[in-house]
Amino acid sequence: MVEYADAAPEVREVYDDIMATRKTDSVNNFWKTIARDPATLKRTWESIKQIMGPGALDPLTKELIYVAVSATNQCEYCIASHSASARKKGMTEEMFGELMAVVGMANETNALVSGYRVELDEQFKSRS
Amino acid sequence: MVEYADAAPEVREVYDDIMATRKTDSVNNFWKTIARDPATLKRTWESIKQIMGPGALDPLTKELIYVAVSATNQCEYCIASHSASARKKGMTEEMFGELMAVVGMANETNALVSGYRVELDEQFKSRS
Amino acid sequence: MVEYADAAPEVREVYDDIMATRKTDSVNNFWKTIARDPATLKRTWESIKQIMGPGALDPLTKELIYVAVSATNQCEYCIASHSASARKKGMTEEMFGELMAVVGMANETNALVSGYRVELDEQFKSRS
Amino acid sequence: MVEYADAAPEVREVYDDIMATRKTDSVNNFWKTIARDPATLKRTWESIKQIMGPGALDPLTKELIYVAVSATNQCEYCIASHSASARKKGMTEEMFGELMAVVGMANETNALVSGYRVELDEQFKSRS
Amino acid sequence: MVEYADAAPEVREVYDDIMATRKTDSVNNFWKTIARDPATLKRTWESIKQIMGPGALDPLTKELIYVAVSATNQCEYCIASHSASARKKGMTEEMFGELMAVVGMANETNALVSGYRVELDEQFKSRS
Amino acid sequence: MVEYADAAPEVREVYDDIMATRKTDSVNNFWKTIARDPATLKRTWESIKQIMGPGALDPLTKELIYVAVSATNQCEYCIASHSASARKKGMTEEMFGELMAVVGMANETNALVSGYRVELDEQFKSRS
Repeated sequence: MVEYADAAPEVREVYDDIMATRKTDSVNNFWKTIARDPATLKRTWESIKQIMGPGALDPLTKELIYVAVSATNQCEYCIASHSASARKKGMTEEMFGELMAVVGMANETNALVSGYRVELDEQFKSRS
Repeated sequence: MVEYADAAPEVREVYDDIMATRKTDSVNNFWKTIARDPATLKRTWESIKQIMGPGALDPLTKELIYVAVSATNQCEYCIASHSASARKKGMTEEMFGELMAVVGMANETNALVSGYRVELDEQFKSRS
Repeated sequence: MVEYADAAPEVREVYDDIMATRKTDSVNNFWKTIARDPATLKRTWESIKQIMGPGALDPLTKELIYVAVSATNQCEYCIASHSASARKKGMTEEMFGELMAVVGMANETNALVSGYRVELDEQFKSRS
Repeated sequence: MVEYADAAPEVREVYDDIMATRKTDSVNNFWKTIARDPATLKRTWESIKQIMGPGALDPLTKELIYVAVSATNQCEYCIASHSASARKKGMTEEMFGELMAVVGMANETNALVSGYRVELDEQFKSRS
Repeated sequence: MVEYADAAPEVREVYDDIMATRKTDSVNNFWKTIARDPATLKRTWESIKQIMGPGALDPLTKELIYVAVSATNQCEYCIASHSASARKKGMTEEMFGELMAVVGMANETNALVSGYRVELDEQFKSRS
Repeated sequence: MVEYADAAPEVREVYDDIMATRKTDSVNNFWKTIARDPATLKRTWESIKQIMGPGALDPLTKELIYVAVSATNQCEYCIASHSASARKKGMTEEMFGELMAVVGMANETNALVSGYRVELDEQFKSRS
């Protein structure tokens, strides 16, 4: 992992922006690890910053979606870090329970649909 | 697929409840296909009904989470049907765009985390 | 796809063995497609033949396991072809329904376990 | 995790049923963790109980299918707990070896089918 | 899909850059579909352009890696489009066959490792 | 795990071939674990040996592809062991960074393609 003290200027610049944006004084292991490739660090941070901010969906909803994908992919680090972010943004225990219930059910029905080879309904054929 | 006209009474009962709950006069292919196993039909519908209704998370947020999981799992039917449900519940084109952006980014960083073997930060080790 | 008439001798030899083993007079598209790489054709067929035959598990149970994996991976071709094999080996409609119920539930709880970060019980820590 | 001593009555009721059904005097971490959401606990247990009992498929075969899905999804907890259940129900070392061989091969051919874009054979097009 | 004639200026700018970079006079459906969200279009194209160009890995190797991921995820569109790109960059039939063989084997052993719960060797514990 | 000292002759034979081929004097945990099923050990080793050697693709490229699949599947053991093999065969830190960037991007666009239901372009419809 690349610690701040040892980081090249272009890496420090990203770290500074992460800490300023998130109002913290440290940077998670994820960033310190991918900093081994400064281009990936910069591109990933800029994408995340653009995507996870407020928009048509609020930041909490975006974190819930992030956790849903990560639980589906069995990515423990991502579940841990984005659940923590979601809690900071207001996710209650009850909301987490409902999130998990939907994620579990979606994974179940995804498998049922494929196993039963369910045919697309006429009204779902249009992609728009 | 089991059509209403040919359905056994316990299947019809589920179909009736689906149509009443969703305020429609037809049943999607998913239900008509899994109706080949009435126990699965009944259990799946009752779970979905319990999970997808209003709670700490609103029904639209739940549909977004469903689509996020389905896009991650490459389940076309599930994406098509739950995107349609999400639109009925108020998902705009802009919200869909942001949903996809988060889903894409989460899938990207899930792979980065595993490939780089990112170590869990101290503050994420506690599971509660 | 490599048709029998156009196949090189080492491909024909595999096709002949597939047809003799399966007691059919044609070869599925899977084999005709991977025959573009004769080494992959031969290795895959020999592995499948060794693995799917009778052993401590009977051939039908093996087909059920194959379908379970394929439904989880959303591989339509694999679901279609191995469901057909399972039916030939005695899978009834009721067995298929129970197979799908287990597959759906396993996919659901796999996601719950990861999302909730369930800790390994003491008695499951030993790998043997 | 919700321990029995601290559990609300509706959680205790599920724990009691789990222990009675499984003839054990303790409850696995999975149940104690999802008990944070009593509705999910109850629904998941009732589904599992209905699905994993004897039917057209015997309980051991169902455990094998569970392990197959869990190995495909890289869910360590699920592999550990359901392998243990399978062993209790009679899975021998030889059966486990064959299970893994089929799971490995199915994951391999699932990827080959998608990479080669194998076309569905005429006889597999019908979904029934 | 957003056709060039109907595209907003910021979308046209991306289309122009895609066509100039790839030396073609049309844009694939992928770009025309995600153009519904111009921010995603721009960010994705700029990332792809930065990542897929020559570097320590040559562009053909990068296409092979892209196809490997896409075959693992069962994404037909991605396999089709990146196999085509790989062929333009020099992938022969023999190389494709070897690519698929490695992808198949990796998916097989990934499942074996998880099912057998293989323990990390001492020399693999260090992450650097 | 089956140690050399305790191994049956047919297992020792495979271990000897692994050590001779790889020019090492020990065998990784993967092999020692699957040796519980000698048929799987032998078949898997022979397949790996055939597939991972030099051919139209060089051995380093094959290791990169292996890591790409393993990162996508979240298989930590496979990432650790095949990254180590890749480094031995010449993978630099810069190459690893580019590998991860492509893997991350491919996982992102795979999800975008499925979520947006991108339609296959005319020129990609032919499978050959």
